[in-house]
Amino acid sequence: MSKLPSDQNQTAIGRHVAFVGAGPGDPELLTRKAHNALLAADVVIYDRLVSRPILDLCRAGAIMVPVGKEGFGPSKSQQEINALLVAHAQNGVCVVRLKGGDPTVFGRLDEEIDALEPEGITWDIVPGITAASASVAAIGQSLTKRGRNQAVRYMTAHDMQGFAEHDWHTLAREGEVAAVYMGKRAARFVQGRMLMHGASPATPVSIVENASRPDQRIISSTLARLEADLAKAGLSGPALMFLGLAPRAAQMELQEGIAL
Amino acid sequence: MSKLPSDQNQTAIGRHVAFVGAGPGDPELLTRKAHNALLAADVVIYDRLVSRPILDLCRAGAIMVPVGKEGFGPSKSQQEINALLVAHAQNGVCVVRLKGGDPTVFGRLDEEIDALEPEGITWDIVPGITAASASVAAIGQSLTKRGRNQAVRYMTAHDMQGFAEHDWHTLAREGEVAAVYMGKRAARFVQGRMLMHGASPATPVSIVENASRPDQRIISSTLARLEADLAKAGLSGPALMFLGLAPRAAQMELQEGIAL
Repeated sequence: MSKLPSDQNQTAIGRHVAFVGAGPGDPELLTRKAHNALLAADVVIYDRLVSRPILDLCRAGAIMVPVGKEGFGPSKSQQEINALLVAHAQNGVCVVRLKGGDPTVFGRLDEEIDALEPEGITWDIVPGITAASASVAAIGQSLTKRGRNQAVRYMTAHDMQGFAEHDWHTLAREGEVAAVYMGKRAARFVQGRMLMHGASPATPVSIVENASRPDQRIISSTLARLEADLAKAGLSGPALMFLGLAPRAAQMELQEGIAL
Repeated sequence: MSKLPSDQNQTAIGRHVAFVGAGPGDPELLTRKAHNALLAADVVIYDRLVSRPILDLCRAGAIMVPVGKEGFGPSKSQQEINALLVAHAQNGVCVVRLKGGDPTVFGRLDEEIDALEPEGITWDIVPGITAASASVAAIGQSLTKRGRNQAVRYMTAHDMQGFAEHDWHTLAREGEVAAVYMGKRAARFVQGRMLMHGASPATPVSIVENASRPDQRIISSTLARLEADLAKAGLSGPALMFLGLAPRAAQMELQEGIAL
């Protein structure tokens, strides 16, 4: 056994934050590594969209800190979140920063890492299943397919300045596939841009709400019908929109009986 | 308790294949659901690139069937794989089709589902951590970042006809990020296309070999130096190439001492 380090060193050794992907909501879609991180954490700083069954897996006695980003109601600013991460890590305890999906996909991870590094706090990233992956599994399709598309895009339809511009001309081509994150609000914008750039009004569009959760819903639509179908469906949960993919027939049958 | 079904029904009930994502190689990056599927499987039909520690998690006594796609040495044709899936599923046993990464990303999933459906065999998809996700975590970056890119592309540089064409003009813009799967062979092609379409020779390019495995290696390069750096590195394992991303300094320090 080596000698115990001094208090100062002990604190230095413990200064670490694990950025952990919670996946889309089903606790079975956590990685084993993420699960173990939750079991070991002293402090869990989590986004409001992380599902209750996942929070329930955390060690009893862990300090649970909701920060509400992406959620509804009051939420903390990025600066406040950064300050919380630094403060808890400086206590030398095991800190997990739990983010929905994969922390590297629309997760604002860089801002938080940039806050840790000047303080000498180390970090690592535990990847998670991103919403596109769980959603495409739900509709029984692939994100890429030989002879159809050799590329898939993950995109968001709005940025800091408002709606985000993309190369709609390419996206409008037949066979292109894109996963639009947080696409609900921007559906009318995306529809307009795609049609303006020559996409067929019959281009399939699938929306998956609450992917992998018990209340998951699939909406099978087209560019032409998108706005009307979304209005009819009245989505309230997080939703991912696929441009260029329709659900397999078998997946829609599984869902029959649910009024859209 | 309901009555036992007839033998015929029992067989029909059992006709199912689970398409399971094995993730990038680290068995800790399996989802809990994938792990449970491996523990329950009677037959596991697996790609050669699935790592040994993951295969070791399968139930003792399970029939293990390597099919070698994407691997080296002799491998089975897609028709042979389809026939194996159908034959095992028709025995009414619990069949797992285990694919590296996420079955929906460059996984040739559709061909196999198309073979099952006419036989009345049901299926489901268990998503996995795809190579891009594990690789970007390894270099300490995000696939998307506010103010830099609101979209990320997963692409392959070759298709059935040879090298695949993409809208290089867009990819060549500053701030664009793409994950190129199976990009090693196509590095010279990608380099040429990007430079031809106006990309800066200083565009960062990162290559992650054996992402998440004990022999993981990170190569930090640029478009200008790509071919020379790859020749020097002499990669032998599966590698993912990021266009537009450099590793964080901290991640390169972790790797110091490894001769590139």
